[in-house]
Amino acid sequence: MQAKKNKKTQSSRKPAKKTSKKVSKKTSKSKIQNTLPDIDENFSEWFNEIIFQAEILDYRYNLKGCGVWLGYGFKIRRKYLEIMRDLLDNTPIPHEEMLFPLLIPKDQFMKEKETVKGFETEVYWVTHGGLTPLDVKLALRPTSETVMYPMVAKWIRSHQDLPLKTYQISNMFRFEGKNTRPLIRVRELTTFKEAHTYHETKEDCTDQIREAVSIYKKIFDTLGVPYLITQRPKWDTFPGADYTIAFDCIFLQSRKALQIGTIHNLGQTFSKTFDIKFETADGNQEYVYQTCYGISERGVASLIAVHGDSNGLKLPPVVAPIEIVIVPILFKNKEDEVMKVCNEFYDKLKKEGFKVRLDNRKISSGRKYFHWELRGIPIRVEIGPKDIAKNQIAVVRRDIKGKEFVPIDDSINYLHNLLKDIQQSLQKTAKKRHDELIFRTNDLEEAIDFIDKNKGIAEIPFCGEEDCAESIEKRLDGLKFLGIPERYLPILNKRVKKEKEIYCSHCMKPVTKYWRMGKTY
Amino acid sequence: MQAKKNKKTQSSRKPAKKTSKKVSKKTSKSKIQNTLPDIDENFSEWFNEIIFQAEILDYRYNLKGCGVWLGYGFKIRRKYLEIMRDLLDNTPIPHEEMLFPLLIPKDQFMKEKETVKGFETEVYWVTHGGLTPLDVKLALRPTSETVMYPMVAKWIRSHQDLPLKTYQISNMFRFEGKNTRPLIRVRELTTFKEAHTYHETKEDCTDQIREAVSIYKKIFDTLGVPYLITQRPKWDTFPGADYTIAFDCIFLQSRKALQIGTIHNLGQTFSKTFDIKFETADGNQEYVYQTCYGISERGVASLIAVHGDSNGLKLPPVVAPIEIVIVPILFKNKEDEVMKVCNEFYDKLKKEGFKVRLDNRKISSGRKYFHWELRGIPIRVEIGPKDIAKNQIAVVRRDIKGKEFVPIDDSINYLHNLLKDIQQSLQKTAKKRHDELIFRTNDLEEAIDFIDKNKGIAEIPFCGEEDCAESIEKRLDGLKFLGIPERYLPILNKRVKKEKEIYCSHCMKPVTKYWRMGKTY
Ligand SMILES: [Zn+2]
Ligand SMILES: [Zn+2]
Repeated sequence: MQAKKNKKTQSSRKPAKKTSKKVSKKTSKSKIQNTLPDIDENFSEWFNEIIFQAEILDYRYNLKGCGVWLGYGFKIRRKYLEIMRDLLDNTPIPHEEMLFPLLIPKDQFMKEKETVKGFETEVYWVTHGGLTPLDVKLALRPTSETVMYPMVAKWIRSHQDLPLKTYQISNMFRFEGKNTRPLIRVRELTTFKEAHTYHETKEDCTDQIREAVSIYKKIFDTLGVPYLITQRPKWDTFPGADYTIAFDCIFLQSRKALQIGTIHNLGQTFSKTFDIKFETADGNQEYVYQTCYGISERGVASLIAVHGDSNGLKLPPVVAPIEIVIVPILFKNKEDEVMKVCNEFYDKLKKEGFKVRLDNRKISSGRKYFHWELRGIPIRVEIGPKDIAKNQIAVVRRDIKGKEFVPIDDSINYLHNLLKDIQQSLQKTAKKRHDELIFRTNDLEEAIDFIDKNKGIAEIPFCGEEDCAESIEKRLDGLKFLGIPERYLPILNKRVKKEKEIYCSHCMKPVTKYWRMGKTY
Repeated sequence: MQAKKNKKTQSSRKPAKKTSKKVSKKTSKSKIQNTLPDIDENFSEWFNEIIFQAEILDYRYNLKGCGVWLGYGFKIRRKYLEIMRDLLDNTPIPHEEMLFPLLIPKDQFMKEKETVKGFETEVYWVTHGGLTPLDVKLALRPTSETVMYPMVAKWIRSHQDLPLKTYQISNMFRFEGKNTRPLIRVRELTTFKEAHTYHETKEDCTDQIREAVSIYKKIFDTLGVPYLITQRPKWDTFPGADYTIAFDCIFLQSRKALQIGTIHNLGQTFSKTFDIKFETADGNQEYVYQTCYGISERGVASLIAVHGDSNGLKLPPVVAPIEIVIVPILFKNKEDEVMKVCNEFYDKLKKEGFKVRLDNRKISSGRKYFHWELRGIPIRVEIGPKDIAKNQIAVVRRDIKGKEFVPIDDSINYLHNLLKDIQQSLQKTAKKRHDELIFRTNDLEEAIDFIDKNKGIAEIPFCGEEDCAESIEKRLDGLKFLGIPERYLPILNKRVKKEKEIYCSHCMKPVTKYWRMGKTY
């Protein structure tokens, strides 16, 4: 439905001209007007439109749930991957990036029954090579355990080979029967980063879980994306894992939680299935302990969602393909003078290492403002004859309203600091709004009402039993338990608080924890 | 066959321990000995073994023609991609990196009949999602024309949208019936870079072909990979293209040419099929002119092949994951002193920006030399008590024999220059040996004899007719015409030489060009 509608309303629009470092001088005839829906009134439509209009992805491909990363979007994706790789490559014992095959022979895929069960109806099957039926059907990886673990079993021999930390960034496939949604529910995941680690002991695994949490915190903090860390209920744990810790981001308008990262302590489940053994220091054979953790293009989805407004994206400077755009304010007979100063200023910023663009297209300044606001460029610099006369530049930041005039001689320092400030400010603002969406209460009715009125995520006293959860989840369409908040998890806290005199919201048993529940994507 | 044999002989070996920036101190019990075949006596075996032993890829995956990029190999791949992206992103009008879907609905795939014909027997087909047969079968992209062009038709409206230069780096699939070969003939191409460009005029297309040739020259020059540039015969032109220019690298031992890059002038063939039109400056509708050009992991294959020797890889410093390895020479009671100096030297090199590793594993120096030679690290630095007494380091380069002693105070400059020297020297040496494999003669018998004795590629006078080519190719198993040498191509030369008084080696018609022929991969 969504996709079809997009196809209609968007068919006459197109991503803007690809340009050189300096925007081409050719004029453009296409009409520009803000056609973004109001972000608060119709977030879902806004989200689809901004992805298309800001040239992140084009989903008008002839296969539902598969999109094309466009030039601008791809640059944001690159930054996201750079941040990821930089952290994974530089842990005290580095994560080694590898790349495993996409195709999995059916017999190999079926070996791990628990995982397979979860994916049975979601796997794409290759059955023919050319016109010839294949002897063994091939699955397009929906997840990589069955691809990786038989290989790793060949690599690990002794405790000296441990720990082994690996990751890959690749595409994954899920045959989604339900409605697809740009960057969130897709058939081809284009940007799935999965780390898999192998250890000697259970304790090493626990340490690794901590490292994974710390890496993901840093990634999302860098994107300015707020999150909740929650241990999933046992019925929502990754099949075969001892436990699953998830990062969720509550979208600020829809108030629904999007799972943006998961971390699994796999124990020895998979090493036993795939026979990944090692020789211990005293000569015994033991199965390795494993963890795995993944994030995807949902990281990009959430940074779009939590910072954006009705005028478009707001990109944190660290992921912005362009940090500063210079717009010349041209008046008759002053064009050459203004362009000269703009060109000089462009060169100066370039030399200082700013990611800068000079927009010298022959279109109105208004259209330029619109264009770059939509794309979320953190800073716009305007230079006109008056500014030149006063030896100043006008600086407009994308994240908050207002224009500052800055002496051109102080501008480099000013802009450096402003970028840092925008980076922090976007994160802080999003976090503050995110925090306000979490409501703790001992009164189930109040919690249900809060969620029903689309106010966010509620924390209620809960016993952790699936029966109780089901009874409560039934109360509201789409209601789900996210699980146990970070503050109660012994592996993530030196001291864990135990709540006193609270009782499960359903069975009334005395309990020691509040659990999170809410609507989810 | 190959793969099976590998499985047996290699099952007890494994990629070495993944380590931190400083190699772990744990001892390793596995035996090390050079098990590489002699590169001159059995190049093909050497090639398979070095890829495995140096931890480039592991092909012991349960599906022929699909391998796993290992940590070390992946780092080389990363450098290769960096070099590529850096050039494509920074052309005067940049190439925009994008990412298109892997799956192509059958009806869309069948639209371009000429290309499809070439791939009919080579395409993997997805027929089921979960247990449900799909309404429309999906092809795994064997090439991306049918994926990209319908989208691009939506993007291009006016001459102002041109030129448009795009590229993507992704995986491609070919159901290879023939024997697969690591990095050269695979079922999953993991590293296919394809650029697609769109232009207003035929002339712009020609300019683009020149830019593409210049980009590929720079890429292969940086890798130190020698090449021949040849226009393919019309019967070997990409289906639908006006002409195809190819880069071939003659492997120095096998003397067979590997096609490592192709550049196609597509004219308007595809724009007519996919209806990619634009409005000209004077308001008419016209079809765009197109080019496309691709390179793949064969770039890595060729850099391995042309530089390596019987002791292993020789990596050009620009792609080496580690430029310098420091090996402490330890004597009893001097260990602490030596390790102190080595650590200091390591920190110094690190600070100077060298990619350096200190190998402090508790194994013999001999085994360390073996280990790093196999992996092609350009420079080894040895530091022992004698060196410390003399305030010097011992420097061993991987590319040529010999050891130099360098005062530690001069070492930084020395090492910087040495890396530059190795980079150039590897390229020069390979080019020189490559040049010697090309033989020009007017005598067909001599040419056939040259190729039959496995001496390389021959150039003979030739008319360009397919009939003549077939008659000549029949003379020798595996013999193939590569096409017309660069020096005769008007688009790549201001002045083109015309040979005089030479006659086609088969039909004896007077001709003006020598053509290249030889054995190919
Ligand atoms: Zn209960
Ligand atoms: Zn002839």
